[in-house]
Amino acid sequence: MTTNTIRVAVNGYGVIGKRVADAVTAQPDMTLIGVADLATDWRTKTAAVNGIPMFAATGQAAGPMRDAGIPLAGDLDDLLGQVDAVVDATPKNIGAANLDRYRTAGVKAVLQGGESHTATGHSFVAQANYTSALGRDATRVVSCNTTSIVRVIGALADAGLLAAARGVLIRRATDPWESHLGGIMNTIVPEPTIPSHQGPDAKTVLPDLDVVTIAAKAAHTQTHNHYWTLRLTRPATHDEIIAALAAAPRIAFIRMADGLVALNTTVELMKDLHRPRGDMWEVAVWEDVLTVEGDEAYLTYQVYNEAIVVPESIDAIRALTGTVEDPATSIARTDEALGMRRDFLSRSTD
Amino acid sequence: MTTNTIRVAVNGYGVIGKRVADAVTAQPDMTLIGVADLATDWRTKTAAVNGIPMFAATGQAAGPMRDAGIPLAGDLDDLLGQVDAVVDATPKNIGAANLDRYRTAGVKAVLQGGESHTATGHSFVAQANYTSALGRDATRVVSCNTTSIVRVIGALADAGLLAAARGVLIRRATDPWESHLGGIMNTIVPEPTIPSHQGPDAKTVLPDLDVVTIAAKAAHTQTHNHYWTLRLTRPATHDEIIAALAAAPRIAFIRMADGLVALNTTVELMKDLHRPRGDMWEVAVWEDVLTVEGDEAYLTYQVYNEAIVVPESIDAIRALTGTVEDPATSIARTDEALGMRRDFLSRSTD
Repeated sequence: MTTNTIRVAVNGYGVIGKRVADAVTAQPDMTLIGVADLATDWRTKTAAVNGIPMFAATGQAAGPMRDAGIPLAGDLDDLLGQVDAVVDATPKNIGAANLDRYRTAGVKAVLQGGESHTATGHSFVAQANYTSALGRDATRVVSCNTTSIVRVIGALADAGLLAAARGVLIRRATDPWESHLGGIMNTIVPEPTIPSHQGPDAKTVLPDLDVVTIAAKAAHTQTHNHYWTLRLTRPATHDEIIAALAAAPRIAFIRMADGLVALNTTVELMKDLHRPRGDMWEVAVWEDVLTVEGDEAYLTYQVYNEAIVVPESIDAIRALTGTVEDPATSIARTDEALGMRRDFLSRSTD
Repeated sequence: MTTNTIRVAVNGYGVIGKRVADAVTAQPDMTLIGVADLATDWRTKTAAVNGIPMFAATGQAAGPMRDAGIPLAGDLDDLLGQVDAVVDATPKNIGAANLDRYRTAGVKAVLQGGESHTATGHSFVAQANYTSALGRDATRVVSCNTTSIVRVIGALADAGLLAAARGVLIRRATDPWESHLGGIMNTIVPEPTIPSHQGPDAKTVLPDLDVVTIAAKAAHTQTHNHYWTLRLTRPATHDEIIAALAAAPRIAFIRMADGLVALNTTVELMKDLHRPRGDMWEVAVWEDVLTVEGDEAYLTYQVYNEAIVVPESIDAIRALTGTVEDPATSIARTDEALGMRRDFLSRSTD
């Protein structure tokens, strides 16, 4: 089979997998060959309704899936036999266990941030280290919070402005789709150890970053919220910080002055912009909350945890398959296909 | 100006107005001429980003809106001068106050359920009383909960199965976009009077319905949940009740067996089906929770309060303007344009 398209599989049709599947479909240089899963309920039935070719992720899953009325095009091995790359969005630790299977099938593999850095030996954020993933057999897209840190704090480091970053991460309690299965109510739960894993995890991509994170879980279901205290390499201005962030991809500015004063307002804005599933792939930095005093800066942003790693997963496919060598080219292609923006309320597209 | 399209204005770009504006745009026989509002923040800026012609709802609003960078095509009077019908989705009581202005402009007016029945003397649910609105100058689309009662309980009455309906309505506390402005947490707030207003309100559309509602507000932000105890005119079967509901429009069946076991799962399903804003215009009745014992039936359904009145508002435009005389024709046209379904997980479109 000769192709000028990258043939992609997604293994796991959960919060990340279903979004990656749609994002692959949106890319001009990729074709979604199919999705593997083992659920038999509304989640996989919806994939079938949406016309996505479905494959049984395990031998045992095929019977129950067919019994549930989900048409199957084969099993995971059948799927792997037809693709150049797979994005593994299975639950934590399963991705690492799947890696040998992908290697045996000769399929490039993108794992997600639930897996450890050591699983692939390479952790990925497109703007930071795309080229080091070129031609590798596998990489790991880091988690949502870590991705945001590399994008934003990494942008300030790239600009030579960052000496040290200390962040407090207020995480969502659970994702909306499974919030009936349990969450927390009317409390905040601090993570028991400092640093929380996100700071060290960011160093798997940017080893020289001086970053410490403290994390807690709050009683809401959508999006994380970061509060950063930054020590700069020199006294700087508000405009310089904004310019450094604007020079990096996948950061969008929002403003309290526009009434975007809480996490829920930004979530609603994404719906109003007709984003698929209300997704925000960008990190939303509050431009008018950012405060700079001499060589200190204080920064607040919002991370749509369900969506932020999707564009990174797309770029990782191009890097592993070596089809696009230039990071900026891949990033621009991904971002245009998804409709990403630098300012949500500007009428220009950038 | 000769037209074969219904020229429509929307006054108020809030939770209902923005959805009606999109739904008008989706109709083959309607043109959205513009939207009037007075906000200067992300809400109206988003309308401009989406290419909707904006008008200042008041004289005082024009300056601040222009200052905020929102391009204005004129004021409300300019807008009313160009349209056949207006959907008023302004805050409670403002719609009634606007009615004289609409009448003076010779524009048919659809008010929303925040207004009282007496404001227009006619309350509207398409499947129940479309023809009585034909050619009127104004009507009121009843509120989200009331619309659901007329659709579902009304369908059982139409089938000759309903003797009396007693319902408990567990409402959402506040809408997501404004949940930062206050809500309730970790409690349930019963309405202090029985019946709550929704039962009597349903009788403004179906005067003969024997219905009593009890309402409470719970600590979530998306969708209402109704629990009904029904006395039937005769012993009936589960299949008969389902058949009666299936014979009425805008009711869709969901099943616990598909994993749709809580309000949040259905909300997620709408996103996965790529619905605009994740909207569910249908009433979602749990087919496998419905229980029938002799001449008693117990029924549970979910109401997406932000969206359910949108198709009714579209039909009300056609009824008032008299452009479509047959209710079923209007309903079918609206539903097809929006992509409404009878079963969300069936691969057929009906």
